[in-house]
Amino acid sequence: MGQETSQAPVTVIGLGPMGRAIAAAFLAAGHPTTVWNRTAGKADELLASGATWADSPLAALDASEVAIVCVIDADAVDAILDRAVAESDRRGLPSTTLVNLTSEGPERTRELAARAEKLGLAYLDGSIMTPAAAIGTEATRILYSGPAELFDRHREKLAALGGTAVHLGADPGRAASFDVALLNLFWSSITGLMHSFALAARHHVPATALASHAQQMAQLVADLIPGLATEIDAGRFSGEESSSLTSIAASLEHIVHALDQAEVSSAVTRAAKEVIDAAVSAGHGDDAPTRLAEFLSRDRMGEREPA
Amino acid sequence: MGQETSQAPVTVIGLGPMGRAIAAAFLAAGHPTTVWNRTAGKADELLASGATWADSPLAALDASEVAIVCVIDADAVDAILDRAVAESDRRGLPSTTLVNLTSEGPERTRELAARAEKLGLAYLDGSIMTPAAAIGTEATRILYSGPAELFDRHREKLAALGGTAVHLGADPGRAASFDVALLNLFWSSITGLMHSFALAARHHVPATALASHAQQMAQLVADLIPGLATEIDAGRFSGEESSSLTSIAASLEHIVHALDQAEVSSAVTRAAKEVIDAAVSAGHGDDAPTRLAEFLSRDRMGEREPA
Repeated sequence: MGQETSQAPVTVIGLGPMGRAIAAAFLAAGHPTTVWNRTAGKADELLASGATWADSPLAALDASEVAIVCVIDADAVDAILDRAVAESDRRGLPSTTLVNLTSEGPERTRELAARAEKLGLAYLDGSIMTPAAAIGTEATRILYSGPAELFDRHREKLAALGGTAVHLGADPGRAASFDVALLNLFWSSITGLMHSFALAARHHVPATALASHAQQMAQLVADLIPGLATEIDAGRFSGEESSSLTSIAASLEHIVHALDQAEVSSAVTRAAKEVIDAAVSAGHGDDAPTRLAEFLSRDRMGEREPA
Repeated sequence: MGQETSQAPVTVIGLGPMGRAIAAAFLAAGHPTTVWNRTAGKADELLASGATWADSPLAALDASEVAIVCVIDADAVDAILDRAVAESDRRGLPSTTLVNLTSEGPERTRELAARAEKLGLAYLDGSIMTPAAAIGTEATRILYSGPAELFDRHREKLAALGGTAVHLGADPGRAASFDVALLNLFWSSITGLMHSFALAARHHVPATALASHAQQMAQLVADLIPGLATEIDAGRFSGEESSSLTSIAASLEHIVHALDQAEVSSAVTRAAKEVIDAAVSAGHGDDAPTRLAEFLSRDRMGEREPA
C-alpha cells in the first residue's frame, strides 16, 4: 500500500536557502511538492525526500494550484515568467496562484503583480520576516498582501510554513512596504549594536560583559515602540516628557567623540547626527525624537518646487 | 513633635531635570537633602518639599557624607570643584564621597576621578541608563564604577534612586564606557526606527499599523544579543547560520533604493552600507554580521604604522 495524502499539491520555484527551507516544510507537512530551479543541483536533497522535479517553469506552474516563488529579486521572477510564456506557445499560462515571497520594493512588486495577472495567473505577495532556519517552526513570520480571497483560499497550505501569517491588505505592494521598513529597523539596530560591541572592546569590555545591559536597552526600544507610534500618528511631538532633539544631538556628538577617540568608525553616528541637526535647524530642537519620523516623511518635492 | 528620620543626610549638586528627580527621590525616601545649583531658582519646588539650600559648593560638600553631582559635563564638575577649592581657602576639601552621575566619556571621567581624589574627596562614578521620569521607580538602572568599598558604603543611600544599581569594577571610567556603548545602541535603534516610520508613512502605512511588527523586530534584536556576544568573544564569525555580510550589503542597497524612491533620507543607511562594504572588501563577505564588531575594533593605528 502506497502512502496516502489528503494535502494539496504545491510548487516551489527557486531553491536558494529560503526556497529549500520552504519546500522542505511543505514535504514535512505531507504536501506533494513540485520544485524547479534554474540549476538542478540544488534540488538533490529535496528529491531524495520525495519532491518531484519539474522540467520547466511552465511545468512547475501547471503542477499545482499554488506556486511559491522565492528568488533573488523581481527581475529573476520576470525571467521565470518570460520562460513560462515562451514555453506556453501562445496557449497562455494556467490560473495558478503565484505566491511571490521574493524580497523586492513595493513599486516593483506592484508591476510584477500587474504582469502576472495580465498573463492569467493569480498573484499574492509575501515578505518573510524571519531567517530560513525558522521556516516550518513557530518562529516564522510572513506578511502577505494582495487579494484577501487568495490569502483565504491558500491559508491552510501556507500554514505548512509555520508560525504567524498576517494579511495586510489588497495592495500587493503593502507587504513589501512593511518589509523594507522593518529590515531598515533591524539592520540599523544590528549595525549600531556591532559599533557598540566594537567601542566596548576598545575599552577592554568583552561583548558578553556588555550583553545583558545591551539586551535591556534593546528591550527598552521594543517597549517604547507602541507609545511612540501613537504619538506620531496623533501628531504629538512634544519633547517635555522625553529627550529633546537638541539634547539627542549633544548626546550623539558625545558618542562620535568617544568613537573617534577609540578609533571606531563614527560615520554612521555622524550621519544620524546630521539628520537630527537638520531637524533642529528647521526649528524642532525642543521636540521629541518622534518629530524625526514626521520631518523625514515630509514631501521634499513639494518643498523644493512650491506650487 | 517634629518629624524624626534615621536616614543619612545627602547632597545633590546640579538641579537640571535629572538632578531635581534625584533630589526629589531622596526627599521621598526620608533623607535630609541639601541642594546646590549654579542658579538658585531651580531649587524652589525642592525647598518647598523640605530640601535645604547650600550657599556654596563647599557648603554643599560639607553638609553630607555623600554628594551626588549631576551636571552637563565634566567641565561643569571641574568648575564646581574650582569654586569649592577657592572657598576652602587652602584648608582642603572634606572627605565627602562625590558620586558623579554626570554623563561623560571614560578618559575625561578618569581625569576627574584623579583630581577629586587629589583634592581629598572620595570618588564614585555612575551612569544613569534611564530617563529622569524613571528615577525613584523600579525602572531606574544606574551603572557604577570606582572603588567597591565606596559602592558598598553608600549602597543603601543610593537605593533611594530606585530600581537596579550595578557595580562594574574599580576603574572609574568603566561605567562611562558602558554608557556610551549603550547610548550608541539606543540612539542607532531609535533613529533607525524613525526612518522606518517615515518610509512607512510615505507608503501610506500609519506608524500604529507598523508598530506591532516593528516591536517584534526590536524584540528579535534583544533576543539575539546574548548569542551574538558569545560568538564575538569566542572569535566565531561564520556566516553559515545567518545572513552573510555580502547579503546584508545587498539588503541595505535595496533599503537605500526604497528610501531614495520615497524621498526619505538614506544618508544613515548609506553610511552603514559603506562600513559593511569595507568589511566585505577586506575579505569578510561570507562572514556573519558579528564580524563587524571585530572589524570595527581593530587597532587602526597598528594598521597604519606597522612596527
